[in-house]
Amino acid sequence: MVSMNYYSLVLVVVALVWALAAVAGDPDILGDFIVPAPMVGMPPTNITSDFFTYTDFLAAKEYMPWPPQYFIVIKANMEVFPALNGQSVSYDMLVFPSRYVNPPHTHQRAAELLFVQSGALSVGFVDTAGKLYTQVLVAGDIFVFPKGLVHYQYNQGPNPATAFSAFGSAAPGTVNVPASVFGTGIDDAVLAKSFKTDFWTVQKLKAALTPPPKK
Amino acid sequence: MVSMNYYSLVLVVVALVWALAAVAGDPDILGDFIVPAPMVGMPPTNITSDFFTYTDFLAAKEYMPWPPQYFIVIKANMEVFPALNGQSVSYDMLVFPSRYVNPPHTHQRAAELLFVQSGALSVGFVDTAGKLYTQVLVAGDIFVFPKGLVHYQYNQGPNPATAFSAFGSAAPGTVNVPASVFGTGIDDAVLAKSFKTDFWTVQKLKAALTPPPKK
Amino acid sequence: MVSMNYYSLVLVVVALVWALAAVAGDPDILGDFIVPAPMVGMPPTNITSDFFTYTDFLAAKEYMPWPPQYFIVIKANMEVFPALNGQSVSYDMLVFPSRYVNPPHTHQRAAELLFVQSGALSVGFVDTAGKLYTQVLVAGDIFVFPKGLVHYQYNQGPNPATAFSAFGSAAPGTVNVPASVFGTGIDDAVLAKSFKTDFWTVQKLKAALTPPPKK
Amino acid sequence: MVSMNYYSLVLVVVALVWALAAVAGDPDILGDFIVPAPMVGMPPTNITSDFFTYTDFLAAKEYMPWPPQYFIVIKANMEVFPALNGQSVSYDMLVFPSRYVNPPHTHQRAAELLFVQSGALSVGFVDTAGKLYTQVLVAGDIFVFPKGLVHYQYNQGPNPATAFSAFGSAAPGTVNVPASVFGTGIDDAVLAKSFKTDFWTVQKLKAALTPPPKK
Amino acid sequence: MVSMNYYSLVLVVVALVWALAAVAGDPDILGDFIVPAPMVGMPPTNITSDFFTYTDFLAAKEYMPWPPQYFIVIKANMEVFPALNGQSVSYDMLVFPSRYVNPPHTHQRAAELLFVQSGALSVGFVDTAGKLYTQVLVAGDIFVFPKGLVHYQYNQGPNPATAFSAFGSAAPGTVNVPASVFGTGIDDAVLAKSFKTDFWTVQKLKAALTPPPKK
Amino acid sequence: MVSMNYYSLVLVVVALVWALAAVAGDPDILGDFIVPAPMVGMPPTNITSDFFTYTDFLAAKEYMPWPPQYFIVIKANMEVFPALNGQSVSYDMLVFPSRYVNPPHTHQRAAELLFVQSGALSVGFVDTAGKLYTQVLVAGDIFVFPKGLVHYQYNQGPNPATAFSAFGSAAPGTVNVPASVFGTGIDDAVLAKSFKTDFWTVQKLKAALTPPPKK
Repeated sequence: MVSMNYYSLVLVVVALVWALAAVAGDPDILGDFIVPAPMVGMPPTNITSDFFTYTDFLAAKEYMPWPPQYFIVIKANMEVFPALNGQSVSYDMLVFPSRYVNPPHTHQRAAELLFVQSGALSVGFVDTAGKLYTQVLVAGDIFVFPKGLVHYQYNQGPNPATAFSAFGSAAPGTVNVPASVFGTGIDDAVLAKSFKTDFWTVQKLKAALTPPPKK
Repeated sequence: MVSMNYYSLVLVVVALVWALAAVAGDPDILGDFIVPAPMVGMPPTNITSDFFTYTDFLAAKEYMPWPPQYFIVIKANMEVFPALNGQSVSYDMLVFPSRYVNPPHTHQRAAELLFVQSGALSVGFVDTAGKLYTQVLVAGDIFVFPKGLVHYQYNQGPNPATAFSAFGSAAPGTVNVPASVFGTGIDDAVLAKSFKTDFWTVQKLKAALTPPPKK
Repeated sequence: MVSMNYYSLVLVVVALVWALAAVAGDPDILGDFIVPAPMVGMPPTNITSDFFTYTDFLAAKEYMPWPPQYFIVIKANMEVFPALNGQSVSYDMLVFPSRYVNPPHTHQRAAELLFVQSGALSVGFVDTAGKLYTQVLVAGDIFVFPKGLVHYQYNQGPNPATAFSAFGSAAPGTVNVPASVFGTGIDDAVLAKSFKTDFWTVQKLKAALTPPPKK
Repeated sequence: MVSMNYYSLVLVVVALVWALAAVAGDPDILGDFIVPAPMVGMPPTNITSDFFTYTDFLAAKEYMPWPPQYFIVIKANMEVFPALNGQSVSYDMLVFPSRYVNPPHTHQRAAELLFVQSGALSVGFVDTAGKLYTQVLVAGDIFVFPKGLVHYQYNQGPNPATAFSAFGSAAPGTVNVPASVFGTGIDDAVLAKSFKTDFWTVQKLKAALTPPPKK
Repeated sequence: MVSMNYYSLVLVVVALVWALAAVAGDPDILGDFIVPAPMVGMPPTNITSDFFTYTDFLAAKEYMPWPPQYFIVIKANMEVFPALNGQSVSYDMLVFPSRYVNPPHTHQRAAELLFVQSGALSVGFVDTAGKLYTQVLVAGDIFVFPKGLVHYQYNQGPNPATAFSAFGSAAPGTVNVPASVFGTGIDDAVLAKSFKTDFWTVQKLKAALTPPPKK
Repeated sequence: MVSMNYYSLVLVVVALVWALAAVAGDPDILGDFIVPAPMVGMPPTNITSDFFTYTDFLAAKEYMPWPPQYFIVIKANMEVFPALNGQSVSYDMLVFPSRYVNPPHTHQRAAELLFVQSGALSVGFVDTAGKLYTQVLVAGDIFVFPKGLVHYQYNQGPNPATAFSAFGSAAPGTVNVPASVFGTGIDDAVLAKSFKTDFWTVQKLKAALTPPPKK
């Protein structure tokens, strides 16, 4: 008889499903689409048209205060929209308050194709030779940030800006540079030497960028 | 204690195996070959030479009436021949009665390399610029239908024709155009506008191409 | 001495560049981005921020009559926006007049992630098992059409609709089903047998869907 | 003025075309098919249906003496059938005289899916754990040799055998083991130690397997 | 109630995990790294820095007799260092006694980039056209053995040699040519014909290369 | 007659070769190895064993002052060792002076598998959830930095340290975080907001990290 308890079995299944998702990758799949594995004791996902439909952009727009007070990113990637698994594409909806900067970051698994829907954005990226490319985009413009390079967007003006970004991966991934470097506890000496600065500056930046502990 | 019933567990395992198959894709595998996961309570697949051998073409030929009365496709893909999983190749054996047309279709995941074994076939495909390429093939000829393009084969003559098709995927997939478009219940208005025709013609085509309901 | 004329050399270079584009594919590139090869006697492309910026959506919107009289597709793919080469992503902007249908079609190299910007769209796709999935989308909704499957969009209402579609390829490709099948000169017998109909119906569909000869 | 001579230019173009072919690989292409680059001063390849048709199997069969005196391999890969470039599939037609062995070999870039058309073949492959899988195949049987593993085919019987092999690559590649190891001049000491034998045996094998010098 | 016993469930899970590993391949993963699935009733792998650290090279060096009496290969691939799964890279540490030959072999899934750390090595590989490339390497040299080709290393000198090899796959695979061909029970007739030699020579080579049966 | 001058033709060829290199990517190649295209008027590369051999590590070691005064990286990637093109693997040799930090950086196209040859290194990387993994490595240890994540190495001790890093790409690419962010002229406002600091701090960091103009 199976002597493990129900919790352990769920754990096994969840781990397997997670591992599965992890290995799925963006290569071609061998079927029309990937049906999520059912949970223990649950019926399998009933695949209807709703499985292929994502309504969170709509919901977000309806309940969003205007003008926006915070930077808002609504993602439509495979984590929240499982039908994208294996389809190699995803969206972000970005809402920038006035004067907001989306700080330098990289996406490890995809280029970003940004379309400005309203307002204006100053954008830039740096290639591996250390050359900065900047552009001022207005509503209707499109800009491509090549795969894996550091880039940012800045809403310099007094009005909000909205944009859509498309990615050629269902899970593009994001490495936020300031938070990764100054917000994760990297040793002060490493940072001082890397940024050719003093400990005091490092500690100031860490204080600003380290998230407060969760209670 | 595990309180789920046997059926649920089988369901979980089947779903996982299916998901596994779905994500396997045609990229390089990291072992010599992929051993199918065993079913619950069953011993694992005993991997002998028979696992790598497929005999349905032989069986089909022995029991096939001649001349053939129907179009016959015997597939050797990963669904029926699991050793192909991860090996990126599969076969179809095609037997055409006299005057038979294999209707316009696409394969989403592979080009098709057709070898005419006996008889003759009129074949064609359409590129994305709308150019039709046609050819009359005789026994011994080979023709390649590029990936994802609409193509057909027609046995115009009085004798049967047989052919082998190789695909660069263990699961090439098939989208049958007439059946997909007129046999699945797409709204009459959509079809009438798409084909620039009237409702009467759409309904006539639907009547001819919609499979009868299963009893 | 080289005895070929200038024209021949240009031809060689153009052919090589085209072949290059053709083989580029969507796999990972080995640099930040791909710089287009210069034409004979021309300076190489000067890579500035403008190379990564695409303004045709903006231009199209400014000069577009409203309400639109025709279905308009503005593409931002590698053919018109060369910076996308190697970045595995592209956009389409779609403008639907009232009652317009974008006829059943497939994209060979990518799934389509459609975002409805304004208006409403009835959409559908057919999986390889012949199951139709339909949905009515309103502004703000997102829908994914899986890779390689037949799909359509229909603006049933009295108002225009606009949408953006993202693709996980810089060159997704399009196979228009009605035009490919009835507009390219496929033999009447092939079509009559494929669609299980008579020659008269085939000829009527061909007459409606065959583009007039260019003068 | 261009001071290089005609020969040099041809050399450049040939080298580029070869490099192109070399890098084309089997990943997805970004067009329907790849048109070969034209040679200097030549018109570009005129793409008609014949470009997609390969007739050497047919020709070979017509002129082949029967019963065959030699092992005959007619290849339909991208080297001889350029339309296969980018389509990830190819064929070999194999004709075995009685008692002939196709010696142990590997294909670096593809599994081999062998279909026995006539006669019988004893086949085998060795997995990386050193396990030998053997099978006796009769006409109509299919066998898959997994990617990269050592395998052979042997026509043990008194009659010829014919087979078709499909590969999931337009250029699968072949490493012939006896010829690579004993026919290329590898140092006797290396071979004696590797095969745990004496110099005399190595020299005997080399004498048998080294091709005679070309005159 | 689940009537299968504990052993069967473990079997299922192990099989699934193995299949998972098998299909993971070297394509891009969709997360930072792949966490191994936990065993039944075990807590999931606790991912700390140790998961990304591999110390067997160090351990091997400390306990290795010097000069070495045997050829020693310490592998750092995904089988022994699971963090490499999905990261497409692995190492081998190679220790050659004086006069030792690492016999002709291939890696199915990766090129080998060999760095000689101490001593000297005579190396060689054979391309598919049958051309042998040989080189004498000294400490500090690097040599690349292209993907899938037969190659060997030979320490001709009186002193030990050590080397590191990097592979562009987390599971490059190895096909040892002498052992695969003469140590696995391939029929004498096949080998005699393949190597153009007599049965006596085949049996002598088999006797030398067949591993003794395990007791 | 060709009226372009020699310079233009060289330019065309160089551009094509570069584009070729750019598109080559790390997918499987369709030949044993990729032969570099010859320059105009030059004989094609003579492919001998030297083409597959790289001796710059050896040269560097011989002429390197000891203890090292600067951080030294000797790369063996496809830019300096063209035989690696298409082989999906490369090496870096790293020499750390005492107290040196290799600042936070990412590799866009590969994980890094670091082997410490002598001395000791404190290393760390940050996953996309913002978790820092640190480890102190001694000679003989191996550590893997997953694909695309920010990581650093720090030689905290009084002695030099040497390491080898293997990458699963012939062109892994490097994005140096401090130099990309503070050394390329990104607008002060963008940086101040991104790092939640004041203009004075941004200007101090820029002054330290911006390379002096070339004369």
